[in-house]
Amino acid sequence: MNVSIIVIGDELLIGQVTDTNSGFLARTMRPAGWKVLKVEVVPDDNAAIRRAVTEALDRADVVLTTGGLGPTKDDITKQALMDVFGGELYRDEAVEANVREVVGKRGIRLNSLTADQALVPSSCRVIQNRLGTAPIMVFEQEGKTLVAMPGVPFETRGMFTSEVFPMLLRRYTPDVALRSDVIQAVDITESDLALRLASWEEALPPFLHLAYLPQPGLIRLRLDGSHIDPAVLDAEMDRRRAELITLVGDNLFADSDITPAALLIKLLASRGLKVATAESCTGGAVSAAITAIPGASEVMQGAVVSYSNDVKTSVLAVDAKAIEAVGAVSEPVVRQMAAGVARLCDADCAIATSGIAGPGGGTPEKPVGTVWICVLTPAGSQAWCFHFPGDRERVVGRAVMTALLRLCKALK
Amino acid sequence: MNVSIIVIGDELLIGQVTDTNSGFLARTMRPAGWKVLKVEVVPDDNAAIRRAVTEALDRADVVLTTGGLGPTKDDITKQALMDVFGGELYRDEAVEANVREVVGKRGIRLNSLTADQALVPSSCRVIQNRLGTAPIMVFEQEGKTLVAMPGVPFETRGMFTSEVFPMLLRRYTPDVALRSDVIQAVDITESDLALRLASWEEALPPFLHLAYLPQPGLIRLRLDGSHIDPAVLDAEMDRRRAELITLVGDNLFADSDITPAALLIKLLASRGLKVATAESCTGGAVSAAITAIPGASEVMQGAVVSYSNDVKTSVLAVDAKAIEAVGAVSEPVVRQMAAGVARLCDADCAIATSGIAGPGGGTPEKPVGTVWICVLTPAGSQAWCFHFPGDRERVVGRAVMTALLRLCKALK
Repeated sequence: MNVSIIVIGDELLIGQVTDTNSGFLARTMRPAGWKVLKVEVVPDDNAAIRRAVTEALDRADVVLTTGGLGPTKDDITKQALMDVFGGELYRDEAVEANVREVVGKRGIRLNSLTADQALVPSSCRVIQNRLGTAPIMVFEQEGKTLVAMPGVPFETRGMFTSEVFPMLLRRYTPDVALRSDVIQAVDITESDLALRLASWEEALPPFLHLAYLPQPGLIRLRLDGSHIDPAVLDAEMDRRRAELITLVGDNLFADSDITPAALLIKLLASRGLKVATAESCTGGAVSAAITAIPGASEVMQGAVVSYSNDVKTSVLAVDAKAIEAVGAVSEPVVRQMAAGVARLCDADCAIATSGIAGPGGGTPEKPVGTVWICVLTPAGSQAWCFHFPGDRERVVGRAVMTALLRLCKALK
Repeated sequence: MNVSIIVIGDELLIGQVTDTNSGFLARTMRPAGWKVLKVEVVPDDNAAIRRAVTEALDRADVVLTTGGLGPTKDDITKQALMDVFGGELYRDEAVEANVREVVGKRGIRLNSLTADQALVPSSCRVIQNRLGTAPIMVFEQEGKTLVAMPGVPFETRGMFTSEVFPMLLRRYTPDVALRSDVIQAVDITESDLALRLASWEEALPPFLHLAYLPQPGLIRLRLDGSHIDPAVLDAEMDRRRAELITLVGDNLFADSDITPAALLIKLLASRGLKVATAESCTGGAVSAAITAIPGASEVMQGAVVSYSNDVKTSVLAVDAKAIEAVGAVSEPVVRQMAAGVARLCDADCAIATSGIAGPGGGTPEKPVGTVWICVLTPAGSQAWCFHFPGDRERVVGRAVMTALLRLCKALK
């Protein structure tokens, strides 16, 4: 099935909010072989919404819209859809009951604006939104389906997974099998990897395709395939994936799309090891990345963010003389931070970071972007000095990624 | 000026990568009165890129594309643009010199694929990309301009701000003044606020418009205006903004678009106070949110992530008996965590969190989403129990936001 997604909202076009719904929808539909042809972001404007909807219905079998269904005056999607599909507003009792229930659960009072969420176009079928007050509306036209969903990511994600997509899957049968496999490479540039893979890539059959997704410190390779016969697809994908893994060789980081934090937890858990972090420039972001993964509590003991030098010496027992002699952003300090937090939190492994994230704080000897990272395992500790380019966010992001990758590598 | 943005890449349409470039471009252009009419995300497909470019040139004065300019085979934007604008590839010496310099700075070897980044269409003018190897290409057609930029956010952001947008500003003079003001409200639902503002909103002149941007725990109100005469716009915006602030009244959180973390740093700095965090379920995310703001080091002492109960008792001196009696997710524990980290890090203020982020760990008495938050100031400590809906990411996000808002409130 071919899908077109329309994301509605002025806040997206002025860059105040980032659209994450379309990516979620694409990821959810892909395993079933549904393909997103296009994502369009349009303003809360009747003509723009109508034009986008009309064009999308021409192009795709299924059109998904998100946003513009709130109770306030700036949300006009409902009217624009009636201008395309016809019908008139009526008060739907089942929607009203659902709105009352949702509002009741939140422990707040139902006011008239929210009650008006029960007004729905007579030209659509409603899917009750158990997670919010905006009803989900399903319009049909000439064998094509448009589903209008709210913009709140929590509501869209929950309802799309539990009800909207199952409904669409019942309605349409997939016409082609798709498969995407990801493998990940480290310690190599994108173009060096591309040169190594060039002749192999050249020899791929026309229904397979390789894409490079470089991130700072990590390159994800995605092998995409589509074929009418799932058995042919699987056999060819299995063979090419194995060849690819062989070619990546020592640069292989992972043979799936697992994140560095999730892989780290897996490696630690399989060896019965515990971890702690001592963070200066990353400010808790390494710990937050690890604990964002369900199951982190099995291996994560804790963390100390030693933003001030006092906390480095008093909590982590870093030698004050070392800080005075070579500065907080230095090899001895980062090694002592790792050892200190491992001792304090009774952990077998540790990550420590100390650097200058900017924009201030740089010196000629230690410019903004200088970051010392130490990883500690039962086999000992290693420390490296990096010079990461970019602004504060990018330096911290690079430091977090690098720290996780290095501890994974030390544990393999 | 009217702008259309085309974001190119298969990885975006399958939801593997989230587009943040278009939002950045929109935010950068908006103060100059430039308006993004539409954002389109299209695949690495010649026909799709050509169609999107042709349509965008019809609609907008300026078209910006990002992505598809890498050295690897899956990047085909250059060819698609030559199919639209004509010309043929030639090796540009200045681009080659720039590629050599960029690659040299990264301390890596130049290979033939990367060297081929110096092949550029004869139909475009080049802006040297000092931050990467893909040249930025400027095409002109019938008074309209298309600029093709790389997809790597760091390169696009840096080059757009420093060179591309200044070039466009010299080329085009803005035709209408735009202004957006944001004020933020807390402790009220979107629809209750909308009812309170309804008659005021009704009376706005046609060139002003109010938008609601609800986030968990916080509602941002954006007042947008556009007028040919900047003086008229400013006078009316000033007046209506003041009225809006009065109407929001006690629910006012901030009269600008400042983030809760940045406001917290401002409040602490103005009173000469230091802060520390003790985090269990948020895993360091409160500390990471605070330290993400430049200048955090002025007020941030440090943090302890006490993920295991042992770290709570040994590092934060939480009473083991309290944990045994009422559990780690409880009022006494979260109060002791706050007091413990303030003492340990020599801070005047503290935030502590303890909760069940899920998906596992819930019980009938303390289901997933139960979070205790304590804020400590020189005036004393306060603690609350929340029940946040949603998955792990959402529970942690809500807890971080709520903790920051509550400490801000306690400091006002």
